[in-house]
Amino acid sequence: MNYYPKTIRRVITHISKLPGIGEKTAERLTLHLLRTPRIEVEQFAQSILDLKANVRLCRKCFGLSDTEVCDICNNPGRDRLLLCVVEQPADMVSIEKSGAFKGCYHILGGALSPINGIGPDEIRIGELLNRLAKESVREIILATSTTVEGDSTAAYIADRLQNTAVKITRIASGVPIGGDLKYVDQVTLKRALEGRHAIR
Amino acid sequence: MNYYPKTIRRVITHISKLPGIGEKTAERLTLHLLRTPRIEVEQFAQSILDLKANVRLCRKCFGLSDTEVCDICNNPGRDRLLLCVVEQPADMVSIEKSGAFKGCYHILGGALSPINGIGPDEIRIGELLNRLAKESVREIILATSTTVEGDSTAAYIADRLQNTAVKITRIASGVPIGGDLKYVDQVTLKRALEGRHAIR
Repeated sequence: MNYYPKTIRRVITHISKLPGIGEKTAERLTLHLLRTPRIEVEQFAQSILDLKANVRLCRKCFGLSDTEVCDICNNPGRDRLLLCVVEQPADMVSIEKSGAFKGCYHILGGALSPINGIGPDEIRIGELLNRLAKESVREIILATSTTVEGDSTAAYIADRLQNTAVKITRIASGVPIGGDLKYVDQVTLKRALEGRHAIR
Repeated sequence: MNYYPKTIRRVITHISKLPGIGEKTAERLTLHLLRTPRIEVEQFAQSILDLKANVRLCRKCFGLSDTEVCDICNNPGRDRLLLCVVEQPADMVSIEKSGAFKGCYHILGGALSPINGIGPDEIRIGELLNRLAKESVREIILATSTTVEGDSTAAYIADRLQNTAVKITRIASGVPIGGDLKYVDQVTLKRALEGRHAIR
């Protein structure tokens, strides 16, 4: 590190702070940037600045957006009666990639975790209830993670909604596709057995 | 990719152009930047802009520098009579890290490679000869890579300097330290045998 001029050291330091990138990789990437045409590097730096300046949360679903209401909430082709509740924007992206969902989302911004001081007021459960009071929704799919926190969050939300007419569902958990039974953990297997369905 | 707003997609595209970083990692790093405090991200972007604006080649050794003459060439503690010739700035950094060299450098900016159209005029051999005409140098260590190109470059430089009084040496090649003989390639072993030295 000390063998580079200060300007280069500064970039190496910043890049090596990124998750999963060590100093050696940071060094390699920095030297690559040095060899990249100036205009391209300037566009790269500008895109990073724009990231913090322009990206905000969608006013409706709290997903990442660079407009007040995100593309999904604005899309007239999406089913507004179907609401999928997820923890983080990245979870929404995963579901979008699957192509299996054409409804709208609600991003909680986390999961209940009393040990980390995250209660119902720290995530967007109140905002979800407000949405349900204003929008007409047929079904809420609780797609929080299948962790202790995600499960508790789903249970808590289901509980808070028990007096409403909305149908509430939870995503299935079980053996992942392509999963070899002998490598699947026991809790997952237990869930897969509990959640078995008739095929004839 | 298409599941993110345009501002985010742009950063992912730029990051995924970096060597060894796929789209998945680029996505992860971009989401990390979104969670990083604005001031830190701005400093990161600025450091990248400074990189292209401030880093130049040292007027003497052609190493990376943010001043006209680099810290090594400017350091009165370095032996100016000893000149180490390397291909790239990164090679110089490797030698510096070893701590085994206290002289000065000359960075060629590449190695001879006729197949790629790189002849003596494409790398800084003329500049090396100019330096030798002006500076008094006792020994030149040819530390180009031990590849076909690096070896030819070293041989070519030695040839061009044969009528000068300067001592010319080539770095040793042989079995790397910690190397298990059964895993060492045959060319390296041949070199190690040829380069054997008496121990008593």
